[in-house]
Amino acid sequence: MNKKILEFVDQLKFDQNGLVPAIIQDYKDNKVLMVAYMNKEAVEKTIKTKKTHFYSRSRQKLWMKGEESGNVQQVKEIYVDCDNDCLLVKVKQKGEAACHTGYRSCFYRKLKKYGGFKIVEKKYFDPEKVYKQAK
Amino acid sequence: MNKKILEFVDQLKFDQNGLVPAIIQDYKDNKVLMVAYMNKEAVEKTIKTKKTHFYSRSRQKLWMKGEESGNVQQVKEIYVDCDNDCLLVKVKQKGEAACHTGYRSCFYRKLKKYGGFKIVEKKYFDPEKVYKQAK
Repeated sequence: MNKKILEFVDQLKFDQNGLVPAIIQDYKDNKVLMVAYMNKEAVEKTIKTKKTHFYSRSRQKLWMKGEESGNVQQVKEIYVDCDNDCLLVKVKQKGEAACHTGYRSCFYRKLKKYGGFKIVEKKYFDPEKVYKQAK
Repeated sequence: MNKKILEFVDQLKFDQNGLVPAIIQDYKDNKVLMVAYMNKEAVEKTIKTKKTHFYSRSRQKLWMKGEESGNVQQVKEIYVDCDNDCLLVKVKQKGEAACHTGYRSCFYRKLKKYGGFKIVEKKYFDPEKVYKQAK
């Protein structure tokens, strides 16, 4: 990876756990698909491979989005916020759903006026058929 | 606040610092304007007042977006992600810029192919004229 890219990664302000949140947004209609965390290695792999990589806090390991489901995200554009502590990644989502629950986005539940949720998206797949093990 | 709303807040999974990230998105064109953190009180105040409130990690206090600049955010819709640990808030932004730097969004810098940034937004105001003290 070239020096300037490495300089960019070095400028990021990772939190006490070595992570920055990354918002994943559809490059066409700006739908926010998901939010996950990247460590330094995940940022570098995302830039290098043009596929989104994250660090799983629960499983404590690097993962590539779609490594199991096939629903990979092709990176189109990367933005950084004013504080250098959050990334916005515009992607082309393979498949119809980004969320491991089978919905297009992880934000498929909308808060109702007087409490409780309404599911506002269509479920595209059954997670039990797509993932071999529970996430 | 009604019981169901309080139940919603209780279901959120705040991190070890008592915070959840909140993505603030323009309700009309889905532009991601900023990301900031909410503690329990900030979530409750955001729902109650329909104006976004956050918890500043650096200043260690609750703040309302626009309290100094006047650029308040009127809450239109609130979504929660599949893990209950991230919020997406669609807002009507008062004024032309959400970022304290004077740009419309905090994500005004795009990573260039071979490193370095390109500023891809227009600067609407001079922060020194809008904020009395450094943020």
